[in-house]
Amino acid sequence: MPFEVSSLAEIATLADSLPTADATSIEAARSRQDSLTKPPGALGRLEEIAVFLAGWQRSDRPKIDHAQTLVFAGNHGICDRGVNPFPQAVTAQMVLNFEAGGAAINQLCQANGAHLQVVPLELDRPTQDFTTASAMSEDETVAAINVGASALDVSTDILLLGEMGIGNSTIAAALACASFGGSPEEWVGAGTGSNQEGIALKARVIAEGLERHGAGDPLKALADLGGREQAAICGAVLAARDASIPVLLDGYICTAAVAPLFAADSRLLDHCLIGHASAEPGHAKLVETMGKAPVLDFAMRLGEGTGAALALGIVKSALACHNGMATFAEAGVSDG
Amino acid sequence: MPFEVSSLAEIATLADSLPTADATSIEAARSRQDSLTKPPGALGRLEEIAVFLAGWQRSDRPKIDHAQTLVFAGNHGICDRGVNPFPQAVTAQMVLNFEAGGAAINQLCQANGAHLQVVPLELDRPTQDFTTASAMSEDETVAAINVGASALDVSTDILLLGEMGIGNSTIAAALACASFGGSPEEWVGAGTGSNQEGIALKARVIAEGLERHGAGDPLKALADLGGREQAAICGAVLAARDASIPVLLDGYICTAAVAPLFAADSRLLDHCLIGHASAEPGHAKLVETMGKAPVLDFAMRLGEGTGAALALGIVKSALACHNGMATFAEAGVSDG
Repeated sequence: MPFEVSSLAEIATLADSLPTADATSIEAARSRQDSLTKPPGALGRLEEIAVFLAGWQRSDRPKIDHAQTLVFAGNHGICDRGVNPFPQAVTAQMVLNFEAGGAAINQLCQANGAHLQVVPLELDRPTQDFTTASAMSEDETVAAINVGASALDVSTDILLLGEMGIGNSTIAAALACASFGGSPEEWVGAGTGSNQEGIALKARVIAEGLERHGAGDPLKALADLGGREQAAICGAVLAARDASIPVLLDGYICTAAVAPLFAADSRLLDHCLIGHASAEPGHAKLVETMGKAPVLDFAMRLGEGTGAALALGIVKSALACHNGMATFAEAGVSDG
Repeated sequence: MPFEVSSLAEIATLADSLPTADATSIEAARSRQDSLTKPPGALGRLEEIAVFLAGWQRSDRPKIDHAQTLVFAGNHGICDRGVNPFPQAVTAQMVLNFEAGGAAINQLCQANGAHLQVVPLELDRPTQDFTTASAMSEDETVAAINVGASALDVSTDILLLGEMGIGNSTIAAALACASFGGSPEEWVGAGTGSNQEGIALKARVIAEGLERHGAGDPLKALADLGGREQAAICGAVLAARDASIPVLLDGYICTAAVAPLFAADSRLLDHCLIGHASAEPGHAKLVETMGKAPVLDFAMRLGEGTGAALALGIVKSALACHNGMATFAEAGVSDG
């Protein structure tokens, strides 16, 4: 039965029934790593990544024959407040660029072997300006979550997530702030290219939004302050968990999109790795709060899932070593 | 005419005549990056890597159709002093493992699309114990340099370097210390698995070697304290430079192998990137001294070229974006 949610309140209770990582596969994968022709631990984080995938794929020999990348796109009423130097029409223009194969995420999916699907979410119907109303109703939010959930190919070996949406670095900072506290100033950054004045404006509108909607319930914040692409990312993450499929999140916007899930129950993200440490200053704080060290750090700040797609190559390399290397016994190498 | 050297002294003078990066290609590549459908600089270090390759490949559209990995293997008289917990026979056993396709470097070359060649260097004739004699004569050193130089495929688009040699983390620390100063304790680490006592022993034999041979001439140190695989790596780096081919160095042992070149004339390594920040503590100091931030940091400490092969995937992704992305004009995207 395809995964879907019927209410926001339901999400906070899901972790008790969703699958956890398989301890037997983890143990078997660790034991295999220690038998391979290298000093124990010498492949460092590659070993940890292989063991992580073993747990979620429930196999001591995890594989990536099929990787799905989902990029969700949405538009945001908060752009009426001038938080982004680009016109909102760029969201749809970039969706066309994705469909024509011209964006960074197209090249990175092709180079690293992932199948890219772009899911535009009612681009001609932006969310409400969150300083004057809830960005989305609960029904709209649940609908977007279920669009995200239903976009998952449950036969994929790993799911990569990304987003596009002019103005959504403001949405990200608002969700991070509502989920984890602190002042808006701590969570905002330049995004696609705001100057100091633009960054201060972002912090100001977020303060207005928090003042209007209150804090305390992170899933309510997803509706009040979020956007359709953020809700869809949450849905895809939950559906992947339901199918025990490991997830590679992208950078700041994508990690902030699932901050409400983490704040509601941190176990909901146990199957997720963060692909890349964004150059957006708020990402370091998010990553630290979630206790998830990003796979890569290349000072990128593009979104689209680019950090996840780049990390996929590393994950594949980790599995290539895990599955392809000879053991000391097989190779006839003395093990010290 | 194939590149070769006739003496160690000659090497220190080479930088004046070897090619430098092509400024026109660098400028054209930078200009292309700024026209692509992303905020300027949003691909972070991927943009820098693409521009770096443009300079050395002398083209605004650098490519990697063919990547060559050379892994040089050697044995070391210093093992007589008990600096490594593994028997010296493991070097030849691992060469067989490379040839059979069972080592980590085999999987990483296959996963990231590099052609692997293993070059064993007189494994049955270890170098001399450097505490009692020069490890190699100048003739032996020059011969090993020229073996490395001649192993380069001058039609390759990029060269990856790695090594295998039981005991060579001691050789690496000795070369780093002779090239850049400091105490032996600052340059030694666990290598393939030394305990505290073993690490202290490494530092002690290095102090004896430096005492015996003196410091001051880094290329003489390559002969006095080095090994054949270190000399071969230097030769391959110089031959690649002669052909204007960019190089991906591996971790600690490989970076230390070329420390004498850097100390003789830092320009000799201008065409080299470091693939991976080794977990060996001395590597951070090497990297800082050379001013070359490693592409990746996964706490690996295996050698074999594994860090270079893993970084190759990132370099290919950088070029995929550089060459494959649409410009704002091509995609009809508003550029803010």
